[in-house]
Order: sequence, then C-alpha cells, then structure tokens
Amino acid sequence: MKKTFSKRSSGLVSKSVNMVIICLVSLIYLLSCSQPSDKKNDDSSYGIVIHGGAGVRSGKEMTPELEKEYRVELEKSLKAGYKILSAGGTSVAAVEAAIRVMEDSHLFNAGKGASFTREGINELDASIMNGNTLRAGGVGAVRNVKNPISLARMVMEETPHVLLVDRGAFAFAEEMKVDIMPDDYFFTERKWNSLQKRLKEDIPYGGKLQSEPKESLTPGMSGNEDLYETVGAVALDKNGNLAAGTSTGGRMKKRPGRVGDSPIIGASTYANNKTCAVSTTGLGEKHMVLLTSKEISSLIDHKGIPLEDAMNNVILNQLVSIGGEGGAISIDKYGRMAWAFTGIGMYRGYVKQEGIAVIKIYLDE
Amino acid sequence: MKKTFSKRSSGLVSKSVNMVIICLVSLIYLLSCSQPSDKKNDDSSYGIVIHGGAGVRSGKEMTPELEKEYRVELEKSLKAGYKILSAGGTSVAAVEAAIRVMEDSHLFNAGKGASFTREGINELDASIMNGNTLRAGGVGAVRNVKNPISLARMVMEETPHVLLVDRGAFAFAEEMKVDIMPDDYFFTERKWNSLQKRLKEDIPYGGKLQSEPKESLTPGMSGNEDLYETVGAVALDKNGNLAAGTSTGGRMKKRPGRVGDSPIIGASTYANNKTCAVSTTGLGEKHMVLLTSKEISSLIDHKGIPLEDAMNNVILNQLVSIGGEGGAISIDKYGRMAWAFTGIGMYRGYVKQEGIAVIKIYLDE
Repeated sequence: MKKTFSKRSSGLVSKSVNMVIICLVSLIYLLSCSQPSDKKNDDSSYGIVIHGGAGVRSGKEMTPELEKEYRVELEKSLKAGYKILSAGGTSVAAVEAAIRVMEDSHLFNAGKGASFTREGINELDASIMNGNTLRAGGVGAVRNVKNPISLARMVMEETPHVLLVDRGAFAFAEEMKVDIMPDDYFFTERKWNSLQKRLKEDIPYGGKLQSEPKESLTPGMSGNEDLYETVGAVALDKNGNLAAGTSTGGRMKKRPGRVGDSPIIGASTYANNKTCAVSTTGLGEKHMVLLTSKEISSLIDHKGIPLEDAMNNVILNQLVSIGGEGGAISIDKYGRMAWAFTGIGMYRGYVKQEGIAVIKIYLDE
Repeated sequence: MKKTFSKRSSGLVSKSVNMVIICLVSLIYLLSCSQPSDKKNDDSSYGIVIHGGAGVRSGKEMTPELEKEYRVELEKSLKAGYKILSAGGTSVAAVEAAIRVMEDSHLFNAGKGASFTREGINELDASIMNGNTLRAGGVGAVRNVKNPISLARMVMEETPHVLLVDRGAFAFAEEMKVDIMPDDYFFTERKWNSLQKRLKEDIPYGGKLQSEPKESLTPGMSGNEDLYETVGAVALDKNGNLAAGTSTGGRMKKRPGRVGDSPIIGASTYANNKTCAVSTTGLGEKHMVLLTSKEISSLIDHKGIPLEDAMNNVILNQLVSIGGEGGAISIDKYGRMAWAFTGIGMYRGYVKQEGIAVIKIYLDE
C-alpha cells in the first residue's frame, strides 16, 4: 500500500485531479493503519479455537479408527471449553478446560502421552494468559503433574510470578494440591518407541543441531509428527475478554531441563484484549527467537492489519524465513478466528456461536 | 502525526493549496514510517552499553568509597567488552566479557552477590542473543554456576535449544566443565540481611502479590534497590553485528524455581541486526508480559521510529501503564545508543569509538 502510494505520487504534484487520487489513497492508507475502534463483544461472537499440534500422522498411519479417536477427543475438548463460554464463564476457564481434555488423552504430546527427554523422563511445559489483565502464568520442565495448564493458571492467579520451573514448579504443585501422577501414567508405547528410534540416530537430537537462520531444516524434523502434537486453545468470552493457553511435553529426545516455547509468554501463548489471543505449535526454539505470538499481536497493534494477514505474515513468511516450521491458532476481540501453518499439517477445530453452535474439526493438512 | 493529518484533511478536499499541504504531510508521514536504508557499519560506530541494574542505592547509603567501587567495576566491565570490539572481536564475545566482570563482583545481583530465594538459595538466570544469526541461549534457576552468561552462550552455540533450567542446566554446566562454585561463594551479607528483613514483612513477597495492570505498585518494590541490580550489556561490533545479554539473581525472596525476564528472549534480551539490541532490568514479571525488548525492536521494525523514541515509548509509557518499573539499554545497527528508565535510577555506562574511546559512567538517576 505504502509502495503503491509512493509510486503514484511522483511527478503529479501540480495536477489537482491526480492530487485528489493521491489524497484519497493516502486517506485509505491512513485509515487502514488505524486501530479498529473498541467494540463491546456481543453474544454472537464468542467462541473457541483449539489445536492438537503441528505435524499430523501420515496417511497410512491414520486408520479410520484412529481418526475417529482424534475427532472424539478434539470434539470433547471444544465442547468442554464452549460449555463454559456459553454459560457466561471466562475465556481463561474455557481455555483451561479445553486443554485439560487434551492433556488427559494419550493422543497428544501434553500431559499423558508427553514426549520423553533423551533420558526417558517426561518434562512438561504449559502457560496461560488473560488478555484482559495481561497477567500470565507458566510452568516449565515440571514432572508428574497431571494437568500442567491448571498449574500454570495457579502460577498466574496465586503467585507474583509468571514462570516456575522444575523442582520449584513441582513444590508449588504439591502446595496447591493438584493431581500428581506416577511416571507410568505419562508413558505411551508409541512415544517410547519413537525415543528409542531417535536414540539410535547418528545425529544426537539433543546435540549440536540448532540450525542457522535460513539453513535447511534440522535433520529429523519435517515429517516426524511425533516431535510435535503440542496442544493449545484460544477463546473469546461473552464479556469480550480474550485468553490463550498452550501445553506440551516438548521435543522428543530434548535435553533434560530444556524449556520450549509453550511456557513462554509471547513465544507460544499471548493474549491481549487490544488485539488477539494466539497459541503456537511446532519447532519451539524458532518461536522463542521470533516471539511468534507477540509478533502477530504487534502487527495488528502497530500496523492495524487484519488478524488473518498478521497470522500469514508471521507463520508463512517470518517463521519460515528463519528455518522454523509449525503453526498457530488465533481469535481476535471481534471473535474472528484464524489459523496458519507450514506444510506439515495441524490438528485443529473451533466452535462458534452463529445462531447455533457450529463445531468444525480438521485433521488434514 | 496520523491524528494531525486527519484533522487537517476534513472539509478541504476541493481546495488545491490545502491539497498540497495534505499531500506533503502524507508524504512526510509515509517517509517517517519507512525503514532507514541498510548501511554497512564502519569502525567509527562500534561500541558497548552496559547496565548494572535498575534501582540505585539511596544517597546516604552511597558513600564516596562505595561510589568509587561501583565506578571501578563498571569501567572494568566496559573495558573488557570494548577491548574485544576494538580488536575486531564479535559483539557476542564483548557482551559476554562485560557481563562476566559484573557477575564476578559482589556489588551486583548476578553471579556472586545474587539475591536469594525465600528459602535462602541463589538461583541464577541469564541469556544472550546474536543479532546476526538470531540464535539465542539462556539458563534459568540454575545453581552454583559462577558465570551464567557464559553457560547461556554455550546453550546457544552447543545445543539445539534456547533455554535450559534448574537441574538440566546444571547437568549441562558440568558437561561443559564451566566453573562451579560452592554456595558460600554467592553469599553476601547485604543480600542476606535484605532477605531476613523481607522474610519478616507482613506481606509475603513470594505470595499473592502479582499486581493487576494499572494497580499501584506491588508493596515493597519502589525504593528497594536491592530487589534489582540485574546486569546487562548490548554491543555493536566492527562487522555491524549486534548482540545483547542479561544476567541476574532475580527478585529477592522469590519462590524457588521462579524464572524472571532475564533468561527470556524478547522479554529482557533481544538482538536483531535489522533493528537493535536491548537488555532490560527491573520488575521481571512485567517485562515478561510486555515483551519489552521485542516490543522496542518491533516498533522500529514496524513503524520505522528512531531507537530513542521506541525506548521511551515502551519503558516510560507501556511498561509504566501496566504497573511495571525498571529500565533498558540499547544500541542500534548504526551504533546509536539509548537508555530509558522509570524513576528508580539505573547504573549504566558506555564506550564509544569517536576518534578516541569515550567512557561514560552514570550512577545517579
């Protein structure tokens, strides 16, 4: 837009007809830069979007039975969140409820079914943010906590902190009396076999593999869907408040103590009533240096561009340009929803109140 | 600017003289939005800026002897970084060297002299970012590591990860054979006495104190300089590459496992050759939800505003509006330096090559 205007303006200053065109173009440009005016949310636009992670199972692995299982769990998650929203509950509560369902399923890489560190331990990351208060909470590399998203919410609501990790996060979990589960609760054969396979690989996945920007993707990333499957949710409630949350077991074969993007506000999870709520999935280390979710919000805030354009810009251009892969879901203060992801697919779905609630679930790319 | 133009434009469309004014204003606006063109850095503009944390000692506490001690350490830090830059070394190496000096001094809240958790343990946070490659590394809540900034650099350069915490970070430190020190190395009487005083306070500092946006400051924050004193550095080298780093012992009386903004890329530390390098200090939890250092970079990137304006906007307006306090230092790709801080003061200094190297150190507000 800016470029178009500059081109048109050269050499036409003295001609008043063209001046009108220039000024109209300028006005349109300036209007397109300005923030949409505040609007009280009405009942018709509340809703929730979820993702079950970037990286879908390959065609032959996705049997009709397994597909059904995914649909059942994603629908259960959407309904758990939507039930809260339609009853007038908060977006924070809806996001937590939706994510808990996926944490409790063995299908996703979060809670039960989490990936393993290279030492065979499940270390969990999660965060949540309230777009109204701009308060946030997260836990990183915490063990044995059944629902890390709920613990993250407690960090937000019960402490002056934003992030607790490892032993301190576990001590806080005990203090809060949340459900603590033994190691074998988190064990799934599929993830364990994946770890064993990776442990035999020549290139140690926990080793010297951080790719330079614009370098080809890290070996073993693309097409290895079991690396991802992080879960997340974003919601807008009847009061017009946004929230976002993310939960994961992190990258398979990560180093012990590795914290990814999921518990980092602005990398994976970000919510701000002024702009939007975002949750990301994919190669966490790239989201952490791009500050993916904050960047999506900032493009809306600084440039006034629509949510969908901001999502596409950040995921399809910026993330890819630094060698990242993955995706994001989002919802803005008007209830507009958007997602974007690189070519590895993303399990996702939404519920929106449009007369009757419409549930949509996508398992394909 | 935008507002001015909109006002001027109403009702003037048919008048061509005013049209010229409108169009000129539009052009100025559009030019002010555009990015400065790329410029190869020359030797004259390399340099380094450091901070010794927001929150300066009160007048009566700052004896002439103590002031001299601060000046000696800050100058030592600046010289360590500048020596590397003037010899053609990298900004990453300069930032690391400058921060190591402050970590090794008992005066600052980083490395030796770190704050204590409420349980009397020193848990250390640090991060570093390379503005050329956009790679970054950090450690959070790690114990007994003499120089967390060097370990953060190893995370960046030796692993595929961005953040390692607590036990995993310590295991990595042992693997890298960095200096590990006993608990008493990190003990300083001043910090210990401060913890004891805070442990007696009515309001538990590790408890329910996370303030709502726009609420008055958390009790016990302002004027309690020993809460802060995080250290940081930003540098531009002869090759035109930017780097930033931050190191801290975190908030006094924090919960065990609390990770603050210092090891979080985009919250405290951020460097991008396209824009600038930033390191923050102050109330970490606010920097973590504002994404202070990324926001400063984004304002330059998205709106093309000068570094100093971006710094003032984010620190003096945005940070303060959510109840935060603290400051930041920065340098951009042209070697322009800027700092901003709220009314609690910030130890700071810089070296810049302008014919001869000029060292400036400020201990006041």
